[in-house]
Order: sequence, then C-alpha cells, then structure tokens
Amino acid sequence: MHIMVTNDDGINAPGLLALANAMKPLGQVSVLAPERNWSSSGHVRTLDRPLRVKSVQMDHELTGHACDGAPSDCVALANAGFFNEKVDLVISGINSSANLGHDVTYSGTVTAAMEAAIWGIPAIAFSLDIPETLETPPDYSTAARVAREIVAATIQYGLPPHLLLNVNIPYLPFEEIRGVQITRMGLRVYHDQLDRRLDPRGRPYYWTIGGSPTGVPERGTDIGAIHEGYVSVTPLQLDLTAFHFIPEMNTWQWNGLSSKGS
Amino acid sequence: MHIMVTNDDGINAPGLLALANAMKPLGQVSVLAPERNWSSSGHVRTLDRPLRVKSVQMDHELTGHACDGAPSDCVALANAGFFNEKVDLVISGINSSANLGHDVTYSGTVTAAMEAAIWGIPAIAFSLDIPETLETPPDYSTAARVAREIVAATIQYGLPPHLLLNVNIPYLPFEEIRGVQITRMGLRVYHDQLDRRLDPRGRPYYWTIGGSPTGVPERGTDIGAIHEGYVSVTPLQLDLTAFHFIPEMNTWQWNGLSSKGS
Repeated sequence: MHIMVTNDDGINAPGLLALANAMKPLGQVSVLAPERNWSSSGHVRTLDRPLRVKSVQMDHELTGHACDGAPSDCVALANAGFFNEKVDLVISGINSSANLGHDVTYSGTVTAAMEAAIWGIPAIAFSLDIPETLETPPDYSTAARVAREIVAATIQYGLPPHLLLNVNIPYLPFEEIRGVQITRMGLRVYHDQLDRRLDPRGRPYYWTIGGSPTGVPERGTDIGAIHEGYVSVTPLQLDLTAFHFIPEMNTWQWNGLSSKGS
Repeated sequence: MHIMVTNDDGINAPGLLALANAMKPLGQVSVLAPERNWSSSGHVRTLDRPLRVKSVQMDHELTGHACDGAPSDCVALANAGFFNEKVDLVISGINSSANLGHDVTYSGTVTAAMEAAIWGIPAIAFSLDIPETLETPPDYSTAARVAREIVAATIQYGLPPHLLLNVNIPYLPFEEIRGVQITRMGLRVYHDQLDRRLDPRGRPYYWTIGGSPTGVPERGTDIGAIHEGYVSVTPLQLDLTAFHFIPEMNTWQWNGLSSKGS
C-alpha cells in the first residue's frame, strides 16, 4: 500500500508531519506537499509554468518533497508518475482548521483529495477543528491517532471509484471524542462584509472578510457532528448535477432555441 | 433586475464584453471582473490582502470594474455591497473554452457562479466550446445570443436557492445549433502525463499537462450534448454528499473509535 500524504498548509506544517508519521504502520509513505501555504486556494492546477520539486528533511527519519505548485499539482504530479511506484491512496491534511459545509469547495485540503478522486485514486482529507482562541501551538497527536483509525478502516472496507472522504476531527482529548458519525454536508454560514478603507494616499481598498464562518449544527451534518464531539466522516462525490431539478427544467421553453426540436 | 457580469478570463476578454452587452435588454448590468486571467484557478478567495478595484472603459458606452482578486472575490465584493444596489443574478463568462464534466471544479467561470449560489444568488456560467484549431479570433455573437435566451428563460422560470446552471455552447452558427439539452455532468478524460525536463543548469522541472482533456460523449451528459450540436444546460448543486454510500459506511467498524457508541 503506497500512501501519498499532502496538504494545503505547506510542507512545514506540523499537521502534515503528524499525519505522515501516523500513516507509517499502514504502508509505504511518500510526502509531496506545497512549499508554501495555499489556504482558501480552491481547486488550482498550474498549467502555464513548470513545477519544481525539492527534498525536505521533515524530521530525523522522514524525507518529504516540496513542490512550488498547489496541493492539486502535487497530487497530479504523483499520479502522473513522480514516484517510481503507483500511488494507492492519497491522504491530505491535517488541516489547521475545520472544512465543513461549503468550505469544501474552497479548501485546498479537500480539493487535493478531489484531484485524486478524479484520477480514480481513493482519497481522504483530514481537518482539525482547532479553536481560534487557542494560544498554545496546537496538538495534532489525537487527530493523527484518529486519522490512522479512519485510514485503516477505509483500506479494509474500500471506497467506490471517484469517491472521497472529508473528515473533520474535534479538538478534544482522545478520551472525550464520542466516536465517528457518517454525515452529510451541512450549511455553513459566512459573515463576509464589505470593509472599504482609504490608503494613506486616499485611494480605496476593500476587505470582504468579517469573522469566521459559523454553521447550522443540524443533526446528521458535519457541522452537527463536530459540535457534539464526534469525528465527522462525509463521503463526497464529484458529480454536482442537481438531478432533482432536471425534470422541471425539461418543461422550460427557450424561445428561439426551443423551436429547434430539442 | 440587477445583473452582475463577471468571468475568469479577465476584464479585457472579448467574451465578457459580448456577454455584458447581451444582458442589457434584460436588466441593469454591472461588470466586475478580474483584471487578469484566472483560468484553472478553482474556487479562490483572497483573504490575506485587501482588494483594489478600478474603472475600465469596455466599449464606447459600457464602463466596467476590474478587481485584482479572483472571480469569486468579485462575486463576494458585489454581494457584500460593492454596488449600491443588491445583485439579483450573477452571470459568468463567456469562457473561451468549454467547462465540461469535472472541469467545473477547476473552472473559475463556474466557481464564480458557485460563490454566488453559496450567497443564495441565482447564477449561470457560460462557456463556448471554441475549437483549439481555430486560427481566427473567435466570434462570440452566437454564444451571446444563446446566453440572452438562457438568461431570459431563467429569469422567467426561476432557480431554487443554492442552485446554479453550467451552460456550454457549441461553436456553431446560430442556425446550426440544434437546441437546448438539460444534461448531467459527464465523464471528462484527462490526459496528463509527467514530462520531466532539465533546465540549462541541469536541474529538473516538471510539466504535468499532455493534450487537452477529452470526454465520454454519452447521451444525456454535457459532453454528449455539445458533441451533438446542442447547447448543454446542467443544473448544479453545492451539496457534494455521496448520499448513496452513507448506509454502507454506517456498517463500518472503526476500531478504537467505534467502541464509543457512535
């Protein structure tokens, strides 16, 4: 089992090292991650310039690879044959904040796993719901232990093609985690506001961010599970088609275009 | 009806101007688009720096706004109140190539529409399937006419909240377009390969791109519709949950985590 580990916080993020080390009992681990932070970068592919990769000593025994592209570039490189051996499983994270609800479309952590799923490789994204108020360096040891359990089970049971798992872990001691909940995507509530300011030369500039997103902690959703102290495991698919709306749309008339007998 | 027009090819792209002008009979049109090309950028939000916006004269009577952020930043700005009037509809495009199948997760054109849908604003992404072999500047007039018909119908019938439309238009004369097909996302086939080269100083660099994506032109899919000369209209939702796999996952055992009675 050849496990590739990547992330979007960058090669030096402590969550990446914790995750890579946690995977060691499960197979051969290769790390290929961005050299810088790509948070909120979405599903980026670098097409207009080549990519560089350098070796990085991550701890006394783990050597990783840092790429100057995005998380999805790392996955594409690996799946196109950067390593001598085929990748069997792509693991992304551990992200330093939760990726809940619609966050998944922005999240580099999750879109790295999506890139793998597009290639037909099973993939899991891990995010840790670190409180913003935490003043000490975060502890990834519990999250890494949870990640190992989740990956072990996924290897045992298997994922259908083109499916990925989005896993969110509450920031709690292992003993206080209440278990695993299989969830659906919840409803994230963003609080973006326009903050218009003037620079020292009197020209306007804009911030669109106002406070962290919250969410509706509905039971059965990722947001609800985390809220109750469970590890949230959401199976995601890449088909975004709103099938339920197709029959209604088939009744629409399209003026000049409808008359063509479609 | 206040219609915001944006894109990911940038403020100077001819497809943006054609789309903005085509929307004029349908409402008040505001253009806010990136100042540069953001193709394959995915769902990006700029959080770590403020955004600048400048006015740009697009033709003799249309003034637009160019932003130094991503397509989704433009939508977030508009929905947070950049314009004095609330935005009722977000239109993105006309992209200079098709966005079919899994392209939608990479596409700035589509993710701009996703950003609007997250905010609860109806949104439509338009892409034109311009042949790569085309040697003349592309003609957007047919695509603009099609876009106006699609938007007019969408205003008439309405979209449910958090739904967006992904529209792909074949590069054909208006008379040869066979009509509209409501479709599902098809299966894109990417041909990425690893191309390892050495720079003049003997250091390796990597390209992961090898040829344009093709697709399985299955009937009922976006790829199939375009292939047959139809305008493809795919309703997309933001919930990626793989609901069909949840019952099976609920039977999985999670070792140390399962015993907690989840």
